[in-house]
This record gives sequence, C-alpha cells and structure tokens, in this order.
Amino acid sequence: MQKPDFNFPPIFKKLKRGGPAIVLPKDSGAIIAYAGISKESLVIEAGAGTGFLTVALASVAKEVISYEMKKEFADLASANVRAVGLTNVTIKNKDVTLGIDEKDVDVVMLDMQHADKAVKIAFDVLKKDGCVVGYLPNVEQAKEFYLECQKQFKKVFMIETIVREYEVRDFGVRPAHWGLTHSAFLVFGRK
Amino acid sequence: MQKPDFNFPPIFKKLKRGGPAIVLPKDSGAIIAYAGISKESLVIEAGAGTGFLTVALASVAKEVISYEMKKEFADLASANVRAVGLTNVTIKNKDVTLGIDEKDVDVVMLDMQHADKAVKIAFDVLKKDGCVVGYLPNVEQAKEFYLECQKQFKKVFMIETIVREYEVRDFGVRPAHWGLTHSAFLVFGRK
Amino acid sequence: MQKPDFNFPPIFKKLKRGGPAIVLPKDSGAIIAYAGISKESLVIEAGAGTGFLTVALASVAKEVISYEMKKEFADLASANVRAVGLTNVTIKNKDVTLGIDEKDVDVVMLDMQHADKAVKIAFDVLKKDGCVVGYLPNVEQAKEFYLECQKQFKKVFMIETIVREYEVRDFGVRPAHWGLTHSAFLVFGRK
Amino acid sequence: MQKPDFNFPPIFKKLKRGGPAIVLPKDSGAIIAYAGISKESLVIEAGAGTGFLTVALASVAKEVISYEMKKEFADLASANVRAVGLTNVTIKNKDVTLGIDEKDVDVVMLDMQHADKAVKIAFDVLKKDGCVVGYLPNVEQAKEFYLECQKQFKKVFMIETIVREYEVRDFGVRPAHWGLTHSAFLVFGRK
Repeated sequence: MQKPDFNFPPIFKKLKRGGPAIVLPKDSGAIIAYAGISKESLVIEAGAGTGFLTVALASVAKEVISYEMKKEFADLASANVRAVGLTNVTIKNKDVTLGIDEKDVDVVMLDMQHADKAVKIAFDVLKKDGCVVGYLPNVEQAKEFYLECQKQFKKVFMIETIVREYEVRDFGVRPAHWGLTHSAFLVFGRK
Repeated sequence: MQKPDFNFPPIFKKLKRGGPAIVLPKDSGAIIAYAGISKESLVIEAGAGTGFLTVALASVAKEVISYEMKKEFADLASANVRAVGLTNVTIKNKDVTLGIDEKDVDVVMLDMQHADKAVKIAFDVLKKDGCVVGYLPNVEQAKEFYLECQKQFKKVFMIETIVREYEVRDFGVRPAHWGLTHSAFLVFGRK
Repeated sequence: MQKPDFNFPPIFKKLKRGGPAIVLPKDSGAIIAYAGISKESLVIEAGAGTGFLTVALASVAKEVISYEMKKEFADLASANVRAVGLTNVTIKNKDVTLGIDEKDVDVVMLDMQHADKAVKIAFDVLKKDGCVVGYLPNVEQAKEFYLECQKQFKKVFMIETIVREYEVRDFGVRPAHWGLTHSAFLVFGRK
Repeated sequence: MQKPDFNFPPIFKKLKRGGPAIVLPKDSGAIIAYAGISKESLVIEAGAGTGFLTVALASVAKEVISYEMKKEFADLASANVRAVGLTNVTIKNKDVTLGIDEKDVDVVMLDMQHADKAVKIAFDVLKKDGCVVGYLPNVEQAKEFYLECQKQFKKVFMIETIVREYEVRDFGVRPAHWGLTHSAFLVFGRK
C-alpha cells in the first residue's frame, strides 16, 4: 500500500511541505469550480498553511491575500509562492478573525481552526454573489460552519469530493485497490 | 427524487442548454486542477458542446480555442460565451481530428466521440509539461484513450470524481439520500 | 430519474411496506457479514419496523426475537413475516429499553430512535464475541451510539455501505448516472 | 498508511491465508443479501480459493459444494473449513466448467478465471428464482459475464460494494483518510 502522488501538476513539485496538511487538486479544483473563482477574482485566504492551496488559487485568480497567524507558516507559504514565481499573492501574518482589510472580495477561503468565527467577517467584505468556502476535516466543524453560514448567506451547501483512481492495463481496467478515502468537507455560502 | 441543481456558480445561470450533456463543476474543477490550467494557459477544446465547459475554462484560462464540428452546437456555444461576456474564446466550426492550428498549447481538452483519434494531434501541439484531457462516459472509451495516451505521454492517469452532497440540519447531518452517481471518467496525459 | 428497485431477492416481493424506511440488501448483507450472523445465531432486533430487516435476518439466523413498541408496526411486521412463511420469528410489542428477556444472545440489532439507550442492555445479554449493531441515519446518532459502545465493548467500528450499480451495454459500461447515495451508518460493537 | 483488518467476525481469525485474494465481509454480505442465500439454500461455489467465502456462505447456507481445480487450494480450503468446525461443506477437486453434479441449486457463486464459461452450466442446475453470482476484479470480465448472463437469465444486474470506515472521536467524526477502494465487481443473474 504505497502513498499515491495525488497527481499534482508540475508547478507543485517545487513546493516544500511543512507541518500542515496540504490541500489536494481534487479539493482545490472543487473550490475553484463551485466558488466560481476566475482570473477577475480577488480571493482572501486564511490560513496560508504550507501555501499549496495559495498557489492553486493564485494560478487562477487575479489576486490572493492570505492571512496566516503563525509566523512560521507565513514564511513557508511566502517561500513557496516565490519558488513558483507567482507575483499576485500577499501573505499577511495576521489573525483573520480580527478583521479583513480588503473590500469587494469575490471569495473568502477559510482553511483554519474555528473557521466559523470568520464567517460574519467574510460576509461583510464579500460582493453580491461572492462566496465563502470552508475546508473542514470533521463533520462537527462542517456542521457548525454550515449553520453559521445559513445565518448570513442566501445559498449554503456542503459537499465532499472523492476521487477514484483507475488502473488501466490492456487486459483489464479496475479502480485502484487502495487510496485516499477522505480529506475534508467543503462548505460553500453564496451571498 | 428531485434533480439537484449541481450548485453551479451564478455565471452559469445565464447559459442555455442544448442537446449535449453539460460538464458539471465537479469535473470542470478537476480538469482545471489536475491539468494545471492557469490564467497564463492557452487551452484547446473539442467539442464545444453547449459551451458549459468552455465557459468554465475561459473564466480561468488566458485563451480558449474551441473546435466544434456541428454548426448547431458551435452556434449555441458562441451564444452562451457571449451571454456571459467572455472575450477570450474563439469557437471554430471545424473537426479537430483534421488538425489543430495553434502551437505551444498548454492543455488540449477532448470531450467528443472518438477522442482517442485526437491524442496524437494533441501531443504534437502541446508544450513540455502540457496536458491532454479526455472526458469519457464509458469505461471502454476511457481505456482506449488511456492506452493511446500511453504511447505518447510521459505520465498518464485516469480518475473519476464523485461529489457527495450533505444535508445539514440542527438535529442531524447525513449525506443526501439520492444523487448523481456518475458523469464521466477523466483521463490525463502529461507531456 | 427513476427510483431503482434495489434488487431485492424474490422473497421480499411479498412484503407490504408501511411508514418506516426499509432496510436494503446492501445494509442487511453488511449486518449479517460483519456481525457474523449464522444459522446458529439467536438474534434480538428492535424495532421491527416494517419487518424487511426481520425477514432478511430470519432467513439466515436460527431465531429472531423482534421488539417493537408501536402496535401498528408490530402487526405489520408480523403479517410480513407470516406472508413469507418464516416460523422462527417472534414479534414482541415491547419497549426494548425496558429490558431484553433473552440470554446468551449472538447479535442485538438496533434500528430505532435513541438506540444508544439500549447499548448497555444489549451488552448484558450478549455472549462473548457477540455483537451489537446500530443502524443510524445521521452522523450525530452514530457518534453517540459509537461512544456508548466504546464504554462496554472490546471492539467498536463504524462503517457506511455504498452500492454502485452499473449499466452494461455491448458498446459501453459505466456506473448508473443516478442512484441512492445514503441510507444509514452502521456501528458494530463486539463483546 | 496501515492495512485495515477488514473487521472480519471472530470465526475468520482461525483461517489460514494462501495465494488467492480473500473475499471480504463487504462482498460476502452483499452476495448473501442480493442472491437471497438462506439457511434452506444449496449453494455451489467455484473456486474455493482459500475458503474465506466458503466459510462465509456455509455459516448461512444449508449446504455448500465447492469446486476447486487446484489441488493445493482445495486442500487449503478443506483445512480452513475443518478449522472452524463447519460440517455442511464438500470441497471437490474438480473443474466446474466440465459440469455441476448437483441439481435444484439455489445459488451458484463463481469466483474464478473465465467465470463466463460456467454461466450456462450454472443456469441449467439452478431452480426457478435461483441466482448465479460472479465475483470479477476487472470491468472487462464483469461485462463479459454480464452479457453471458443476459442470454440466459430473466434479471441481471452488476454492482460494486464500497465500505467507508469512519473514525469517531469525542472531538470529531470523519471518514478514515485511507482505505480499500476496490475489491471486485459483483454480477447477479436471477433465473
């Protein structure tokens, strides 16, 4: 049972990993598609973590501002962003629950402890049709986040993305025997 | 058992549907994330179908050139692209298996009958690290496409994306009882 | 999007449905296999509901005693059991949380509101290696049941069974587009 | 990434493993439930393999006759059946494609290479409403088996069982991160 390589595109090969779990393409893709992130989008992220999701979002969005409380992770994410040559990212070593400096934001992406504490703050800086997204490992956190979103947002939904990998041989096709079976739940609130 | 709304972002509400099946966010997101489509990307698509995937790709990519053999679908896709105000899309009423006019392409996205016939053509116009993607409803087509990619590309993988939607109520969380259980297989070949 | 027939074996065609949701083969099979129900087994069930699970269990087990609080369901389950000709079932119109009359029980199967209230009672009447099983629609109930089992049982695990149905045609195989995506969580405690 | 223990019931702890892959509770349960195996059932199995499925079926059925071509596996399966004290199993060191000796059979369970070659033979010995079952690792084999069944049987369906295991802690519930993602496809033909 070998760890899969998750099929990251080549740009991610340049990134260093740190303590926090990395966000996989199956989830960064869903975040982009369901939140409707485009190259016109201003995206706020918290926290930056290792910067894997930051890089995925900044490859697509106009600008990404990433709030990261821990100096160590803010530095790692900054290094990773520089390593891939992205120039549309600002990492702020700040606690997002104390406030978001930006306005007219398209998407606020929350991948952090107590993400539900930032939902109201996110709502206040989002444009109409803007979207808050929570990346939440456990059901309880996802529920809390969902119910908090329901107080503010016109549409709220919770999904889980599962990617099955297939083994293809001339003599036979079948799903891989072993694989990743969970990363996190995704909750979306649309303003 | 009600048809879900698939949680498309607001921009897709303006699109008209036609005959061909539409590509859902779960798949357009995976295509963007695994192929590594960014705002620097030149993307070739064939066929355009209703233009749902065209719009998803063009929201993110620098430029999308879409080959569509059927005049009727080319017109529908063009109308849909205009309806959402995208200016970085060209729809060509052409058969992609007769050749791709562009060069230094980042991603060739194939959602068409006999997609395996276009794999070699895609390979020839792709940059290094560029990616061909097949969107293939049946296992047999996906296998054929995969084996054809293996002849040309350095890395080939086949996945299926599954999105589970959850119902969240104060008294209880559970996956929805009914839902979409399959759209298509995705095969990626990286040059 | 048509409701599937769930592929029940022929014996179930004779059963009448009532108010409560029926337990599907995907779950009755998992209950039998993971709890280790054999033709030597004495099985206690609560509640009987419509008797679909009662019939599945009694087809396999030596004897099934089913506790059902609601007279209406006890009558429906009794009628269903008679309709299929099973003679190894006793339906008791009793509240299982007030006590189980039997001893040396192999499996206690709980499909009822507040199933966690019956865990200790189940533990007390089970043989060594015997098994309590909870059929629980929501995550919160499943968690409560799991944590209660952990206080008593040497091994506890929680699963969800998913059955994907395939459409097979000469020209192509693929999973069905639509289907059941959730019934209930199953929690097992082994003494 | 540790191999899970698959949650086999205690009886299976006494079994020795050999070369062939073992059939897991998720699949043996589905076979019992969808084929409608009861304690009245006469079940023919081919091949015996290590005898894990033989033991699961014989725990439930009246009688199991298991055809196994390879002497080595027939001996292993016999030893395993004796180890758990089952007395309703006969292992025949015979090739099932040369014929089934029994009549009025309830279920014919085929877990072997070229299982489609035994479909007609199975059909001929099955009772009305009897069931043939194929356990088939690859899509191509499953398709071949399915199409062969369609020539003979009144109802044919193909499924795949997926079991998600959950991690339950006081502070949070979530699906396990890693796990089994495929064993085999199951095809059922009902006479």
